Amino acid sequence: MNYPIIPPIDVDAAKQAQVRQNNLTKPARSLGRLEEISIQLAGMKSDPLPDVSRKEVIIMAADHGVALEGISAFPAEVTPQMVLNFLNGGAAINVLARQAGAGVTVVDIGVAADFDPSLPGLLHRKVARGTRNMARGPAMTSAEAEQALACGMDVLAQIAEKGVDLIATGDMGIGNTTPSSAIVAVMTGLPVAKVTGRGTGIDDAGLAHKVQVIEQAIALNKPDPQDALDVLFKVGGLEIAGLAGVMIAAASRRIPIVVDGFISTAAAMIASGLVPDVRNYMFGAHQSVEIGHQAMHKYLGLIPLVNLNLRLGEGTGAVLAFNLIEAASRILREMATFAEAGVSSKEK
Amino acid sequence: MNYPIIPPIDVDAAKQAQVRQNNLTKPARSLGRLEEISIQLAGMKSDPLPDVSRKEVIIMAADHGVALEGISAFPAEVTPQMVLNFLNGGAAINVLARQAGAGVTVVDIGVAADFDPSLPGLLHRKVARGTRNMARGPAMTSAEAEQALACGMDVLAQIAEKGVDLIATGDMGIGNTTPSSAIVAVMTGLPVAKVTGRGTGIDDAGLAHKVQVIEQAIALNKPDPQDALDVLFKVGGLEIAGLAGVMIAAASRRIPIVVDGFISTAAAMIASGLVPDVRNYMFGAHQSVEIGHQAMHKYLGLIPLVNLNLRLGEGTGAVLAFNLIEAASRILREMATFAEAGVSSKEK
Repeated sequence: MNYPIIPPIDVDAAKQAQVRQNNLTKPARSLGRLEEISIQLAGMKSDPLPDVSRKEVIIMAADHGVALEGISAFPAEVTPQMVLNFLNGGAAINVLARQAGAGVTVVDIGVAADFDPSLPGLLHRKVARGTRNMARGPAMTSAEAEQALACGMDVLAQIAEKGVDLIATGDMGIGNTTPSSAIVAVMTGLPVAKVTGRGTGIDDAGLAHKVQVIEQAIALNKPDPQDALDVLFKVGGLEIAGLAGVMIAAASRRIPIVVDGFISTAAAMIASGLVPDVRNYMFGAHQSVEIGHQAMHKYLGLIPLVNLNLRLGEGTGAVLAFNLIEAASRILREMATFAEAGVSSKEK
Repeated sequence: MNYPIIPPIDVDAAKQAQVRQNNLTKPARSLGRLEEISIQLAGMKSDPLPDVSRKEVIIMAADHGVALEGISAFPAEVTPQMVLNFLNGGAAINVLARQAGAGVTVVDIGVAADFDPSLPGLLHRKVARGTRNMARGPAMTSAEAEQALACGMDVLAQIAEKGVDLIATGDMGIGNTTPSSAIVAVMTGLPVAKVTGRGTGIDDAGLAHKVQVIEQAIALNKPDPQDALDVLFKVGGLEIAGLAGVMIAAASRRIPIVVDGFISTAAAMIASGLVPDVRNYMFGAHQSVEIGHQAMHKYLGLIPLVNLNLRLGEGTGAVLAFNLIEAASRILREMATFAEAGVSSKEK
């Protein structure tokens, strides 16, 4: 499969942003991470005054054969029900996206239920009716994984055509912390028990069972940690593949990516395994309650912006982080300089 | 001086909010701190569906006689220059308030310069042309401190009359980390060196000098840690007094207070020293770079919402936190319940 070329970060634009930050009417570096983010944005977007006002969250929905093993607190029927909730505007992500002034794109990339083809607002891109049970064999074929990656790239291209400055990734899929834990365990080499959490809320016995199911899936499928596609199709998910595709295509167009929680960050690991430079276009949004999330951030070299004990997914943490990233951009673009405002700078 | 009565938190409204959170279409508690904040808001506002859409940041500006001791990286002339920058919309707080949809109120409560009385947008409430040098005697008289407290209460009343759901506190005053460090040292009993930082950017020698100046001010004035008014007038500041007044008046009207950084949190300590129940209406916005800030939060029992290495003041961190607090309110008010959305709840 051919992936698009990721352009290098524009060091000159980043330097210009840095110089401007030092001339704005505040002590140098007093806005901390907001200043750093604005400089990163300038480099990513090759624009010393980067604008991120057009924002979109892309939610990929899919089901997981491994849900048959009883690894989730919620029944699989919740996946299509939540897709309808997204389309009706009643989910958490809808509320937060309205607040942030962001659009919401919902993609059926692999839900194990049939939606009315005329359903307004849903992108119908089903690659399969859910993955197969990875505890019994590979979750997908490598062709299915590549089809889902291509779907993600295509969806991003479609959104980019309308015009977008900043994207967030979101997921919906009952059972999807299970493949995400498998991915982080395989790619980091950490023990499954160290990177597996309670998802939507299983109890201690459920957690022990979930760990055992993941260990079994890895032992059976033997994914190659050096081959992200191999990991993806053997122990991943269709929405994870789709989100990885979104990220690769976004980076190729200099569109910064706000990576949401545990599932999105698993997708980010796959994306950076396939195309390492994608990493240069990512922001870590938040530190999830899921215990494996820190290991993912460490692997990717991302420092999450907030820690609010979230564990919902859907892109909720990423859309909350939109506000901080937009604040960084606006500070750089809109603040007065010392000279403009007639304010004395630091004493010599 | 008579302070207004602070109403108790409405436990019933908070309970109703809690019940509603558990019925919204997400795993219980999966929105972490946002859920907790929404429940706190319900209790503060005595409304199970609290609305915080009308937001205002109140910036109190004043000068400090102790600046004569050379404890700041910036000259005192920057205080009035920045007030003009606020009025012209070019400062960081203006940019962030525009983004948050918040109003900005700027109050001259003690700037050591004369503003044109017809200057539009500035509230002229000067109590004195700066404080006196606390390294040589008390910063104010107790009457001046009470006048500044009353001014803050009056400004809040004026804003509340127009209608406001949520406020942030902000400060401007060259040298004002020095009285703030003095306040936290006196009220917590911690050594001055443990709660004194670099403010807008002094070097190691400057920091050592600043610590020595604060130690001298405390030794000379002997503020009584049990008497917040005594601490305030001896080693405080006019903007700190004004902000404490704002907080007391806001709490008395069930208006939640988002406490900004080091100076605002010093004001919050004074406010809660004067009227302990004010504390029930406060949110800690952010963890500042200033090393004494953690001790302040611990004293007040506040857990800051974000840590972005900010050290600017003006209310910038608090206005960034507006977005999270408004998100909490909107989640509670706008999300669909499981029943409304036809989504299955957790398996038994």
